[in-house]
Amino acid sequence: MIRVMGMTTVGQIKEFDSIKDARKAKLHWMWTDFSKPSEREGKELSKTFSFHPLAIEDCVEKGYQRPKFDSYHQYIFLVLHHLTKDTYEAEEIDVFVNEKMIVTWHYDQLKMVDEIWQRMLSGDAAREEQNPIGLLHSILDITVDEYFPHVYGIEDVLNSIEERTDENSSHDLMDRLFDVRHDMQKLRRSLVPTRDLLYRLLNGSNVGLTRDQQLYFSDVYDHVIKLTEMLDSYREFSSDIRDNYISVSSDKMNNIMMTLTVITTIFMPLSFLAGLYGMNFVYIPELEFEYGYFVLLGVMSVIAIVMFIIFRKVGWLQFSRSKKKKRRRIFKR
Amino acid sequence: MIRVMGMTTVGQIKEFDSIKDARKAKLHWMWTDFSKPSEREGKELSKTFSFHPLAIEDCVEKGYQRPKFDSYHQYIFLVLHHLTKDTYEAEEIDVFVNEKMIVTWHYDQLKMVDEIWQRMLSGDAAREEQNPIGLLHSILDITVDEYFPHVYGIEDVLNSIEERTDENSSHDLMDRLFDVRHDMQKLRRSLVPTRDLLYRLLNGSNVGLTRDQQLYFSDVYDHVIKLTEMLDSYREFSSDIRDNYISVSSDKMNNIMMTLTVITTIFMPLSFLAGLYGMNFVYIPELEFEYGYFVLLGVMSVIAIVMFIIFRKVGWLQFSRSKKKKRRRIFKR
Amino acid sequence: MIRVMGMTTVGQIKEFDSIKDARKAKLHWMWTDFSKPSEREGKELSKTFSFHPLAIEDCVEKGYQRPKFDSYHQYIFLVLHHLTKDTYEAEEIDVFVNEKMIVTWHYDQLKMVDEIWQRMLSGDAAREEQNPIGLLHSILDITVDEYFPHVYGIEDVLNSIEERTDENSSHDLMDRLFDVRHDMQKLRRSLVPTRDLLYRLLNGSNVGLTRDQQLYFSDVYDHVIKLTEMLDSYREFSSDIRDNYISVSSDKMNNIMMTLTVITTIFMPLSFLAGLYGMNFVYIPELEFEYGYFVLLGVMSVIAIVMFIIFRKVGWLQFSRSKKKKRRRIFKR
Amino acid sequence: MIRVMGMTTVGQIKEFDSIKDARKAKLHWMWTDFSKPSEREGKELSKTFSFHPLAIEDCVEKGYQRPKFDSYHQYIFLVLHHLTKDTYEAEEIDVFVNEKMIVTWHYDQLKMVDEIWQRMLSGDAAREEQNPIGLLHSILDITVDEYFPHVYGIEDVLNSIEERTDENSSHDLMDRLFDVRHDMQKLRRSLVPTRDLLYRLLNGSNVGLTRDQQLYFSDVYDHVIKLTEMLDSYREFSSDIRDNYISVSSDKMNNIMMTLTVITTIFMPLSFLAGLYGMNFVYIPELEFEYGYFVLLGVMSVIAIVMFIIFRKVGWLQFSRSKKKKRRRIFKR
Amino acid sequence: MIRVMGMTTVGQIKEFDSIKDARKAKLHWMWTDFSKPSEREGKELSKTFSFHPLAIEDCVEKGYQRPKFDSYHQYIFLVLHHLTKDTYEAEEIDVFVNEKMIVTWHYDQLKMVDEIWQRMLSGDAAREEQNPIGLLHSILDITVDEYFPHVYGIEDVLNSIEERTDENSSHDLMDRLFDVRHDMQKLRRSLVPTRDLLYRLLNGSNVGLTRDQQLYFSDVYDHVIKLTEMLDSYREFSSDIRDNYISVSSDKMNNIMMTLTVITTIFMPLSFLAGLYGMNFVYIPELEFEYGYFVLLGVMSVIAIVMFIIFRKVGWLQFSRSKKKKRRRIFKR
Ligand SMILES: [Mg+2]
Ligand SMILES: [Mg+2]
Ligand SMILES: [Mg+2]
Ligand SMILES: [Mg+2]
Ligand SMILES: [Mg+2]
Ligand SMILES: [Mg+2]
Ligand SMILES: [Mg+2]
Ligand SMILES: [Mg+2]
Ligand SMILES: [Mg+2]
Ligand SMILES: [Mg+2]
Ligand SMILES: [Mg+2]
Ligand SMILES: [Mg+2]
Ligand SMILES: [Mg+2]
Ligand SMILES: [Mg+2]
Ligand SMILES: [Mg+2]
Ligand SMILES: [Mg+2]
Ligand SMILES: [Mg+2]
Ligand SMILES: [Mg+2]
Ligand SMILES: [Mg+2]
Ligand SMILES: [Mg+2]
Ligand SMILES: [Mg+2]
Ligand SMILES: [Mg+2]
Ligand SMILES: [Mg+2]
Ligand SMILES: [Mg+2]
Ligand SMILES: [Mg+2]
Ligand SMILES: [Mg+2]
Ligand SMILES: [Mg+2]
Ligand SMILES: [Mg+2]
Ligand SMILES: [Mg+2]
Ligand SMILES: [Mg+2]
Ligand SMILES: [Mg+2]
Repeated sequence: MIRVMGMTTVGQIKEFDSIKDARKAKLHWMWTDFSKPSEREGKELSKTFSFHPLAIEDCVEKGYQRPKFDSYHQYIFLVLHHLTKDTYEAEEIDVFVNEKMIVTWHYDQLKMVDEIWQRMLSGDAAREEQNPIGLLHSILDITVDEYFPHVYGIEDVLNSIEERTDENSSHDLMDRLFDVRHDMQKLRRSLVPTRDLLYRLLNGSNVGLTRDQQLYFSDVYDHVIKLTEMLDSYREFSSDIRDNYISVSSDKMNNIMMTLTVITTIFMPLSFLAGLYGMNFVYIPELEFEYGYFVLLGVMSVIAIVMFIIFRKVGWLQFSRSKKKKRRRIFKR
Repeated sequence: MIRVMGMTTVGQIKEFDSIKDARKAKLHWMWTDFSKPSEREGKELSKTFSFHPLAIEDCVEKGYQRPKFDSYHQYIFLVLHHLTKDTYEAEEIDVFVNEKMIVTWHYDQLKMVDEIWQRMLSGDAAREEQNPIGLLHSILDITVDEYFPHVYGIEDVLNSIEERTDENSSHDLMDRLFDVRHDMQKLRRSLVPTRDLLYRLLNGSNVGLTRDQQLYFSDVYDHVIKLTEMLDSYREFSSDIRDNYISVSSDKMNNIMMTLTVITTIFMPLSFLAGLYGMNFVYIPELEFEYGYFVLLGVMSVIAIVMFIIFRKVGWLQFSRSKKKKRRRIFKR
Repeated sequence: MIRVMGMTTVGQIKEFDSIKDARKAKLHWMWTDFSKPSEREGKELSKTFSFHPLAIEDCVEKGYQRPKFDSYHQYIFLVLHHLTKDTYEAEEIDVFVNEKMIVTWHYDQLKMVDEIWQRMLSGDAAREEQNPIGLLHSILDITVDEYFPHVYGIEDVLNSIEERTDENSSHDLMDRLFDVRHDMQKLRRSLVPTRDLLYRLLNGSNVGLTRDQQLYFSDVYDHVIKLTEMLDSYREFSSDIRDNYISVSSDKMNNIMMTLTVITTIFMPLSFLAGLYGMNFVYIPELEFEYGYFVLLGVMSVIAIVMFIIFRKVGWLQFSRSKKKKRRRIFKR
Repeated sequence: MIRVMGMTTVGQIKEFDSIKDARKAKLHWMWTDFSKPSEREGKELSKTFSFHPLAIEDCVEKGYQRPKFDSYHQYIFLVLHHLTKDTYEAEEIDVFVNEKMIVTWHYDQLKMVDEIWQRMLSGDAAREEQNPIGLLHSILDITVDEYFPHVYGIEDVLNSIEERTDENSSHDLMDRLFDVRHDMQKLRRSLVPTRDLLYRLLNGSNVGLTRDQQLYFSDVYDHVIKLTEMLDSYREFSSDIRDNYISVSSDKMNNIMMTLTVITTIFMPLSFLAGLYGMNFVYIPELEFEYGYFVLLGVMSVIAIVMFIIFRKVGWLQFSRSKKKKRRRIFKR
Repeated sequence: MIRVMGMTTVGQIKEFDSIKDARKAKLHWMWTDFSKPSEREGKELSKTFSFHPLAIEDCVEKGYQRPKFDSYHQYIFLVLHHLTKDTYEAEEIDVFVNEKMIVTWHYDQLKMVDEIWQRMLSGDAAREEQNPIGLLHSILDITVDEYFPHVYGIEDVLNSIEERTDENSSHDLMDRLFDVRHDMQKLRRSLVPTRDLLYRLLNGSNVGLTRDQQLYFSDVYDHVIKLTEMLDSYREFSSDIRDNYISVSSDKMNNIMMTLTVITTIFMPLSFLAGLYGMNFVYIPELEFEYGYFVLLGVMSVIAIVMFIIFRKVGWLQFSRSKKKKRRRIFKR
């Protein structure tokens, strides 16, 4: 779908039936949105606008494209990553902007773009938003803000993993940790280039931002920095969980081996003694003592008790107990 | 609660009943403190002062906000993290400053702000403190200095963990280490952006600090660097403790397995022999020797002794002892 | 083989029989390609062109040469790495360029060079390609683009390894991981210097790129950055796989040891009891009870059941199960 | 103790009874040394010299202070760390310098200061040393040079640990390694800020060093770089030792477990067979064969030998031997 | 030994008997080589040349000196590391250079210096080499090039270690890896400062290199970068080998433990049953059944087979096999 809106010479925002109509209207500025463009509609992009073929190629190609900022002679071109709710997969949105026009291109239908579109037409949009740079800010702002719930969601998963580290459920936790680290990496892959893109947008000279517009983009930049710092924290936290798991696991192994060793060390000598007096030699004097059996039981008890005391002293009978822990929250929300 | 003070034209510091009253007084400068502002009081901030809506948004939002420094046209805006005593949770304090006014905003009641307030009114404040930049310095200085006892506290915890690494109590130590590393990360998250904020305050051109004010802010900067370097040291120290724990733990496992192996290797052949002569074959010549039993006991003793000597030689009977250690202090206090 | 083409004064592209012929033709520009040069043909390079002996040495030497960009007075000199399909081994291609000429030198026959050559002669080449800088761009563009299938191939290998981590096939996976990491390192070794080379080509002042040419080289630069970021992602992913494998492996060990300990702990006391009543003492009262045997069987059952309940409670009888997982794709293609 | 010396107008170096006397003498320059100042003497610092209160605070406070360089209007202020022989604890020495005076302040008595003092009075001091900047160089030079024996001492400890890694003494080595890493961290904590301090001293514009003085400070800077590079080397070396220890330790565990498994696997079937023919069934035909016992002994021998051959083939009977190693030296001395 | 050569006013290169003689000859330039200088000859350095005492100190001291570049007023001073063939120990060579003279100083006799010396006298030296800067280039070029065979040698050692990782020889491999990493660190310690030295030589303003000389030094710089990148690759490769070894080793342990557990779990119940029917109770009905023994043998077989099937299913009887691998080469030579 291609849709067009613009601000008329009398400062009113109006939707147009086609790019051609809009052009006739001598607008202050024009917004063209390519939403899930069909192949035929897609060709409109290169025909109607004289954008550089390289930028058009970046739009039309469906493969993975990292967020970036390219500065062409008459306009700037941005590739952004909008977050898909459940898979952390990036939905690409490409934007061409100068003072007179904004063109947005996205193969996925994006609710946020629809909402901005409605807001503009219904007159609910703020003054500052009613121009191409303002619209770019809105798109960037919402794109970035929609990362927050997902990033907080990662914290929740990490906390629930951490809480259960001492349990016996074991390795499945590590598998979940592995998956959540994978998701964090995906988010980083979108956020870090977005941060750089914003930095260049703010500091690159050839984008004519007013002092006030700069403040608004700074605010978005600030949020991206916060997001990347949160991810860095989570990354470190998740590493610590893994290291902790390894120590829990090795501790468990130690307990198991201690049990095995204690049992073996106590019963092996006793079983040997029992075996000794089960032999069929013609002459084994002890067997003929009337109370030999009871003496042996006594000796066996002494051996068992002594062994037990030694193990107690060496500390092999004092198993570690895991404690209950309380849930924690890493970042205020 | 909103409270206002200012310096009158005759150089006297006076408290006022309302912002309105203060404005009438044509003050040299004015300090407005929003302490635990109610929603109604909060609205005063945007109504009375013409601050930028983005800065106001940063104040009013209760979510996590990282320490930062924003430079607006007529004033600078800072977000600081005051440390909560027990949870290492950051209490946000937001500050607007220029030469004529300072506005502080905090949702938590902060003893340090109350103390500065009293000091100003009682006349105990130093000359250099009696202006907005001086007050900003005091707030920063105290905020940073209050991190020290907590950071030293972390060292104490680390030392007490390190001292007990050789004990059998084991895994709980690693759990404490995990928690203290978590706390260190929290502190880092507040201190590192604070360091950057101070760097920009000192080197950013548009803040008009006098040469002497610069020295005072440098002193705070110096303390933040010291704090972050201490945390870096502790981080490395805590990693070393963990690595050491792993070696202690694997050593313990080795000792356990050696015991198991020694016992098994000695008694298995002996038990086998006993079992052999417990068999009921019709013709086992050894059983009929008069002193067969005693000969076997001799053979068994020889086997046991030889085994023992071999283990001694291989070094499996020379268990490692952990030594007492002395407490250490990492940083002079 | 040495082949020469150039653009005549009437703007037509023509192939020539020898460098000498081409020189006579007073061309706009000339492309000389040394493809698998024989030693005799190789000498042509230093005889015909007055290139710096150091650059010529870099061409002629067959040892490993890292991608680089050298700026000589009258021309620039580049060393590029073209990827061999199966071994990830780099095939070196050396390029001399200025506005009037391009010289390519490669010891391996390169299909991509042949294709560009044909395209130029057949007239299918774009306008922008028909000059030395344009040709340099084509070579760089194709060289870089040919890395993509290989890099995606690495992702496939990593995914197939990750999917099988829980299986018992075990260590061979780690060996494959080791090999794939080795391949990633090889790719990095070619891509990182290529990225730097492109950065310097774009930002170095003495290469006279037009604004439009700069855009085209930027596009290649963008692709190299994407490739190196992908490799970084894979590197981290592969580290996580290894860490995960270690936890899987240690979990397996725990299960094995638990089994051993449970079996040993249950049967050792039972065997001891059986041994006890297999002794041949003259007077063992229990042996003479009519139902002594059945009483003992009862006692043994109680011991086994109690042991079983204890192990159940301690959690040593609740083995972890690995779950099926779904294949994932890291980057859109 | 406070002591004062200075260069008189006739170019002679003289000691004075008090700061007051020295001031009267209209000296070229004056050196005031506060050595272990009493509280009363300490007050002299703020009374007599008009130093900035922040610098004075840094002197008077006894807590940990990192090496730093502060540039005040009329003088520079340095905090240095002199190394305590045995604990690697830093002894702070604070220095104020300009062309006309040098003031040194230290709570510990420092032999090196006493020696410089004597050298100056005895006339043994070099020409270039006879001024405040020259004295600052001497203090820095000696302070830095006194780190060398300690840093070399760390190398000796690391080598002696590395040499004994294969021994059975085991974990105590890791404990020593832990301690030496702790000491290395202490040294780094002093040396890295000292390096930065020297860098700023050399490159900071407002310190008026002559070209020749710059060469002398460069020489000290060079030594600090050498020291920090040595520590970096040692750090890496110590990490490698730890990793090596882990492999030694796991190897040992493998050997122990192999022994256990070999013994168990050989004797368990044999013991089972012995137990089988120790049963009291009324009809066990084998028991009645005349040479049944000898046949069984034969069968048992075959089982044992076959097992042995299998273990040999699997490689479980080919224990690794540790080799003698030669001592190495990492840095020439 | 001290030897002197220089270029006479007629452009001829001549050797002289002493520095004094050379000075008389009014040379274009002069090369003085101190090769294994005796103490007496050493004093010549400070007496004849007016070099700065700090530079002379760096020459005369025999301790470890890192490669560096110092710029004095009238000359530059370089410390270089020439590689000793077998121990990777650095042989220091110190060089003073300006347009009129070059002085080389080395305590070890260096074949490469002798060769350059002969080449100069025999007239085989290239035009560009026949001046102090050209000689400096030759020394640097050869010094750097002589690192290559050693660095390639490290690759060979790493490959031979990697190939044998799966073998049972085990820990000795890790010891060799430890040693080779140590050697790599030694090489890095010489190469990294050499790289920095060359960077400063190329970019430092006060060394008057002609454009062509710059190209020649760039070529050396390029080689040092290649060497350091190779070392970085090897470092990572060696880390991967170690990680791989750990997984191989833990896999082996798993196999050992599985064997132990399988054997124990099969034979313990069987031995228990045998023990049970070896008891001497007066009334054990099973013992009196005519075919009780054969029934029991059947039951035992069933138990053993069931166990075996369970282990097969759990995967504990499917040991991993290591595969043959092919030798690889990391860098083309
Ligand atoms: Mg696209
Ligand atoms: Mg936002
Ligand atoms: Mg917002
Ligand atoms: Mg998984
Ligand atoms: Mg996932
Ligand atoms: Mg904000
Ligand atoms: Mg807030
Ligand atoms: Mg303070
Ligand atoms: Mg203070
Ligand atoms: Mg915990
Ligand atoms: Mg906590
Ligand atoms: Mg201070
Ligand atoms: Mg080549
Ligand atoms: Mg491309
Ligand atoms: Mg393309
Ligand atoms: Mg392999
Ligand atoms: Mg490979
Ligand atoms: Mg592109
Ligand atoms: Mg102090
Ligand atoms: Mg020195
Ligand atoms: Mg010295
Ligand atoms: Mg210790
Ligand atoms: Mg210590
Ligand atoms: Mg020196
Ligand atoms: Mg020397
Ligand atoms: Mg060379
Ligand atoms: Mg060469
Ligand atoms: Mg070794
Ligand atoms: Mg070595
Ligand atoms: Mg070269
Ligand atoms: Mg590790």
